[in-house]
Amino acid sequence: MIEQTVIDAGNEDRVAALRADYDALGAHLDRRGISIDAIRDKVATYGVAVPSWGVGTGGTRFARFPGTGEPRGIFDKLDDCGVIQQLTRATPTVSLHIPWDKAPAADLKAKADELGLGFDAMNSNTFQDQPDQPLSYRYGSLSHTDKATRQQAIEHNLECIEIGQGIGSKALTIWIGDGSNFPGQTDLTAQFERYLDSAKAIYAQLPDDWRLFTEHKMYEPAFYSTVVQDWGTNYLIAKELGDRAHCLVDLGHHAPNTNIEMIVARLIQFGKLGGFHFNDSKYGDDDLDTGSIDPFRLFLVFNELVAAEGKPGFDPAHMLDQSHNVTDPIESLMSSANEVRRAYAQALLVDRTALAGFQQDNDAMMAAGTLKQAFRTDVEPILAMARLDNGGAIDPIATYRAAGYRAKVSAERPAVSGAGGGIV
Amino acid sequence: MIEQTVIDAGNEDRVAALRADYDALGAHLDRRGISIDAIRDKVATYGVAVPSWGVGTGGTRFARFPGTGEPRGIFDKLDDCGVIQQLTRATPTVSLHIPWDKAPAADLKAKADELGLGFDAMNSNTFQDQPDQPLSYRYGSLSHTDKATRQQAIEHNLECIEIGQGIGSKALTIWIGDGSNFPGQTDLTAQFERYLDSAKAIYAQLPDDWRLFTEHKMYEPAFYSTVVQDWGTNYLIAKELGDRAHCLVDLGHHAPNTNIEMIVARLIQFGKLGGFHFNDSKYGDDDLDTGSIDPFRLFLVFNELVAAEGKPGFDPAHMLDQSHNVTDPIESLMSSANEVRRAYAQALLVDRTALAGFQQDNDAMMAAGTLKQAFRTDVEPILAMARLDNGGAIDPIATYRAAGYRAKVSAERPAVSGAGGGIV
Amino acid sequence: MIEQTVIDAGNEDRVAALRADYDALGAHLDRRGISIDAIRDKVATYGVAVPSWGVGTGGTRFARFPGTGEPRGIFDKLDDCGVIQQLTRATPTVSLHIPWDKAPAADLKAKADELGLGFDAMNSNTFQDQPDQPLSYRYGSLSHTDKATRQQAIEHNLECIEIGQGIGSKALTIWIGDGSNFPGQTDLTAQFERYLDSAKAIYAQLPDDWRLFTEHKMYEPAFYSTVVQDWGTNYLIAKELGDRAHCLVDLGHHAPNTNIEMIVARLIQFGKLGGFHFNDSKYGDDDLDTGSIDPFRLFLVFNELVAAEGKPGFDPAHMLDQSHNVTDPIESLMSSANEVRRAYAQALLVDRTALAGFQQDNDAMMAAGTLKQAFRTDVEPILAMARLDNGGAIDPIATYRAAGYRAKVSAERPAVSGAGGGIV
Amino acid sequence: MIEQTVIDAGNEDRVAALRADYDALGAHLDRRGISIDAIRDKVATYGVAVPSWGVGTGGTRFARFPGTGEPRGIFDKLDDCGVIQQLTRATPTVSLHIPWDKAPAADLKAKADELGLGFDAMNSNTFQDQPDQPLSYRYGSLSHTDKATRQQAIEHNLECIEIGQGIGSKALTIWIGDGSNFPGQTDLTAQFERYLDSAKAIYAQLPDDWRLFTEHKMYEPAFYSTVVQDWGTNYLIAKELGDRAHCLVDLGHHAPNTNIEMIVARLIQFGKLGGFHFNDSKYGDDDLDTGSIDPFRLFLVFNELVAAEGKPGFDPAHMLDQSHNVTDPIESLMSSANEVRRAYAQALLVDRTALAGFQQDNDAMMAAGTLKQAFRTDVEPILAMARLDNGGAIDPIATYRAAGYRAKVSAERPAVSGAGGGIV
Repeated sequence: MIEQTVIDAGNEDRVAALRADYDALGAHLDRRGISIDAIRDKVATYGVAVPSWGVGTGGTRFARFPGTGEPRGIFDKLDDCGVIQQLTRATPTVSLHIPWDKAPAADLKAKADELGLGFDAMNSNTFQDQPDQPLSYRYGSLSHTDKATRQQAIEHNLECIEIGQGIGSKALTIWIGDGSNFPGQTDLTAQFERYLDSAKAIYAQLPDDWRLFTEHKMYEPAFYSTVVQDWGTNYLIAKELGDRAHCLVDLGHHAPNTNIEMIVARLIQFGKLGGFHFNDSKYGDDDLDTGSIDPFRLFLVFNELVAAEGKPGFDPAHMLDQSHNVTDPIESLMSSANEVRRAYAQALLVDRTALAGFQQDNDAMMAAGTLKQAFRTDVEPILAMARLDNGGAIDPIATYRAAGYRAKVSAERPAVSGAGGGIV
Repeated sequence: MIEQTVIDAGNEDRVAALRADYDALGAHLDRRGISIDAIRDKVATYGVAVPSWGVGTGGTRFARFPGTGEPRGIFDKLDDCGVIQQLTRATPTVSLHIPWDKAPAADLKAKADELGLGFDAMNSNTFQDQPDQPLSYRYGSLSHTDKATRQQAIEHNLECIEIGQGIGSKALTIWIGDGSNFPGQTDLTAQFERYLDSAKAIYAQLPDDWRLFTEHKMYEPAFYSTVVQDWGTNYLIAKELGDRAHCLVDLGHHAPNTNIEMIVARLIQFGKLGGFHFNDSKYGDDDLDTGSIDPFRLFLVFNELVAAEGKPGFDPAHMLDQSHNVTDPIESLMSSANEVRRAYAQALLVDRTALAGFQQDNDAMMAAGTLKQAFRTDVEPILAMARLDNGGAIDPIATYRAAGYRAKVSAERPAVSGAGGGIV
Repeated sequence: MIEQTVIDAGNEDRVAALRADYDALGAHLDRRGISIDAIRDKVATYGVAVPSWGVGTGGTRFARFPGTGEPRGIFDKLDDCGVIQQLTRATPTVSLHIPWDKAPAADLKAKADELGLGFDAMNSNTFQDQPDQPLSYRYGSLSHTDKATRQQAIEHNLECIEIGQGIGSKALTIWIGDGSNFPGQTDLTAQFERYLDSAKAIYAQLPDDWRLFTEHKMYEPAFYSTVVQDWGTNYLIAKELGDRAHCLVDLGHHAPNTNIEMIVARLIQFGKLGGFHFNDSKYGDDDLDTGSIDPFRLFLVFNELVAAEGKPGFDPAHMLDQSHNVTDPIESLMSSANEVRRAYAQALLVDRTALAGFQQDNDAMMAAGTLKQAFRTDVEPILAMARLDNGGAIDPIATYRAAGYRAKVSAERPAVSGAGGGIV
Repeated sequence: MIEQTVIDAGNEDRVAALRADYDALGAHLDRRGISIDAIRDKVATYGVAVPSWGVGTGGTRFARFPGTGEPRGIFDKLDDCGVIQQLTRATPTVSLHIPWDKAPAADLKAKADELGLGFDAMNSNTFQDQPDQPLSYRYGSLSHTDKATRQQAIEHNLECIEIGQGIGSKALTIWIGDGSNFPGQTDLTAQFERYLDSAKAIYAQLPDDWRLFTEHKMYEPAFYSTVVQDWGTNYLIAKELGDRAHCLVDLGHHAPNTNIEMIVARLIQFGKLGGFHFNDSKYGDDDLDTGSIDPFRLFLVFNELVAAEGKPGFDPAHMLDQSHNVTDPIESLMSSANEVRRAYAQALLVDRTALAGFQQDNDAMMAAGTLKQAFRTDVEPILAMARLDNGGAIDPIATYRAAGYRAKVSAERPAVSGAGGGIV
């Protein structure tokens, strides 16, 4: 963890400017009929989960360039997640990935308690082969043509639930890479039937107070067809399984040009939005930092979420899911948690009464302007104040750097050599 | 109609070569365990509807360059459709578009009977304003914020059904342009709710022996959001409406890179495939001639259709829907009808028993090869023989040109001046 | 024109809030080491041309829904452009389109002088056939296989130059729709050679103080291939022609996912950036309002432009090019001019010294953060103050509505009936 | 190598059917005025290089599932390449990748001679860090901000040339992953200037009888910008470097919907087409088997190549570049070599005199039909006969399986455990 004196020193340097900015914004919002403190309070309670694997350096199929101080295992990862939460106060939970993060439940809970963290959704892995795994997922997992392989994948998911129950998780997220690389390689229909059968077997064992999230993705690692290729198929799954099954939306898993906020709206409308894997993308599943490529799109997603607040059953789970190849992962996750909160804050500023009126009147210019006015408002003072008020850092990245955390853990954690990606 | 002597003369010139090709292919297919005559017989019964508007020259928003002999109205259009059917024997029905094709039912039927044509699905139009139309569709039709405008659009669809009943049609196809051009312009959820309400009002009046086809499209004419934007939303509509509501798939209405055959498979699997608007596209809804850009994709769609043959309730409607900007529309439609049959014939050649075995064994190489072998077989002799046997032309385009049909109708139908597209 | 009293009244209502916002932003920017007045002064001199055709309602190939008070000709259009300039003080010039805007030069100049407007680049039209035009552009214009048709298109462009010389224009913009709809329809190489020959013939007649802008576009109205399909081909043209030939970038003319700011950077680097047609797009050449879909992308383009300021020969032309289907065109153009200035102002806020340092150190997090900080600054007070200081409106749209301009011209200009798009 | 008796036995089983098919096709082509033997002879001399790394199983960033009998090093790889050439007679050369394939030149040559193989272009690798490499490529290589890192990358390329000279290679292919993941991370212009400087340093050392191929790619491994992002930038590189610098086209490296054959035509027209990396793609750089997704696109590329045959300086290099994740790599490469030849054979069948006439007359229907007729001709008998005549297998895959080669090498080569992809 970062020493409190470092945080305090950083905040002391910045607090006067922050108060000036906050007051000025407050006065401006007051003229728009908005209470800045009310927005700050809502933002302060908004948390997004950090994926345990996110604190390690990512890679591509071509190469992986590890940074220094890479976490050696789940307990190092939790330490890193603790720092993110300490400075941002925006990431109170961690999402584990099995088998990467397997450890005794008591140890996990103790460590998390110590760091002030909780556990979010569990993530299963049937897209890789593990050492000593009897059957390979080369040709699929939950939708494999071989029943025994499917059963192995089902049991792995059940094990994830069991581990999750031990640490207080309440959801299982399933993402698989099943699909095909050639037209004809699979019977598209039979493959989906097998998937549904496997998913039903998992759902049948889901604890009553758990939710099951399934995630669609257009392509990669399968490059001709993917079993759960889009929200249409994802919806069919959630519908077939039952009320506790919901669809997870990853912002990078769609076809080019897709209107993602519309998918979000549809899933909300039909009661099947499970939550999000936040990141950003320009080309495919780029897993770039949230809000780094198209911040307006992120805002439009949150515009739908804020509009749906209070709707019965509306309770999406939020998680970051990024691959950090050229930055310090802790910095990227802190920055991204802030970007998620920024979009949320901006969406809270939308004058929804005025908007509804413009929509009813087909006054496209004023309706669009209403959204743009909210989006262009610089809400950084609100975000910073929410952090400060909760014991975090006004400027998390500067504070993190000042604390020398990366250098410190680099001294403790052995260097990892650069591994090639999948192609060698 | 084309004089029979012209057809006969053209066939006479070509029949020897055709028989040689047919026999050689027959011998080859025989070695693959396939009866060429059985394939020819199936192909011969396969028909695809021609859209009445397809026989006129299309255009873009930039310009329209009319050809000569443009049909002046529905009866000229039917004449042109009659020629297509006469030469190809592949297009026994015509699909009307209201109000463009409004005429007394008796007259329509008499003309069609005379030409040996029947009527396919009816198409409504609420994407344009008609003279004397009380309320504008500028901001939408079935999903408009104004109830009276929605009601006007509903009633137009009901009128289409009524007209269709008079001429023996058994289906209504709804495509609308409703959507928005700005983020915020519409409430995405409320707009879809209004759409569903309107669609239900139409469905409630659907005759028992009719089907309702709804068509999705990613974009255009709306450029930020479209109410029925993809198959996921289209499925929800069909599901909400009832058993006689099905989804229509237009090959050019999808996001870039979309696996269309997979959408076809999913809709079949869940009992909601209504049929197709065939065309081809490279960029967007280009409405190019079927099979002209990606013939393998067309084959893969038919591979799913042939695999589903005989499945209970499986009865998709097939129609061409193209915009002919640089060709004689009659030639394009004849050629495209042939391309549809080509894909069907190729798909019939797939060794499905072998394929299923390779799929079960995850032998991607042989499975893919099984499809490719069928695709690369040159089935033109089968298609030509099916035409010849049914009284059509071995080479429809050459025969059409030899007959001088375009010159003849150009003399009768006044020239149309080049109108600008939507932008002027 | 709008009465000054209406403008004054609108400004009076808003000036106190504006001064408060401006002062607060000034204080904030001062803490970042930036003089708000200096930014305002740069912004105030930044102008973007309005296309004459932009003040009319646009359309799609499916339909056109005219608004009220549609301009009847170039003089009405100039009136509308005058209002846009009057209220925004950001659009001092108009770009004409021939033959739509043909009129005696003296009359055009007199009208423009009266309205305080100048003339920007001339636009030729060889993508439509005009009444009495001897040869059709159905199969192409500057790249047509027929020499006489090419010559007709060349002469039209020369006429545009001549007209432009009469009214003080200094540039010709060429956009053509030439291409093909079928693989094989054209010889891709020969077609481009013909294009180059025609372009050279035009360039040979270009006055010494003129520039020639060529515009690329991926597709539409040609749907298989387009002669000038991308910036690579566009660059080759400009290179082949000579020093006064440059490439025009339209933000909606690229392949999905294209990094447009990188194209801008390359063209600047190689001395061939001619300028822009500003608009926004989600799918294709949607011609939506600038900044309405992806404002961050617009900012990134301006980030390259500001970085290149002062580079020898760097002098891009800026024009809006949008299609207004659901808004009052005057409102959209005022809003879009403001959005262009917004991106410019944001780009001026980038701390380029800090950025260069982060780039040199490969500190991606801080480099990206430097851009984001500039982008998220709400510069609206700067834009509004620049308008106010120059006699424009603090809130142009509200002032325009208050003035009742549309109602006034609707009373004078006859209603236009809804024409169908290209498909009917 | 495969035992000749196995090849002979396989051919014996198939030769009668082949002769029947060949004769029937010959008779058919004769009616079209084409000599089948002339086509076969041209096809027989057409070779495509195999990449050394292609014989190993590929992977994605998520996982790699190795097959059995994975080659342990370059000599095993050459053995596998030898089998591909032995059975297909279409892959006479191998393209090496340094440092993966480093070995004494004499040993490489001896082994290649023994297998009847030659060496094609050399491939450098500055997209990965190698053990003991002093400076990391994490932030770039030839375009890195650090001069010493650039120099290291330059020297690696020079070493590749040196190695290549020892084994008879005549070309160097450069593909780098340099780019950025965040807007602002790099100065797009300065980065390209550094790239050009480095490339010039390599070019300066290029032997007189060598060519330098540079390869563009839209994205991956960089996900916001890539230095050599498209053919426009690639052309600028080749132009800046000099006459022996050419552009390499990989079929999967383009934006969605890109008309690739047009890029090929442009590069030929301006003398800068270096050659190809053949594969197929549906979404991104999927590296699927050539012709497996869009065989018509491959044909259209070859249509341009055949049209350019004989043009001065036209001499493109052909190589397969695929990632084999679900097939035996040897089978995929044999199949893909055949697909390349198939497209070549089909393109040779195009009646170019007729085509030119239709193009001149703007007869799009007949022009397109001319291409389609060539494409749909089943040329497999020609390809098989070319193999048979040269000592290869009529059915390479069946013969390869019958020979039990994979089982044999699996016994000799130790099993490789499934490694995770870049993300773990």
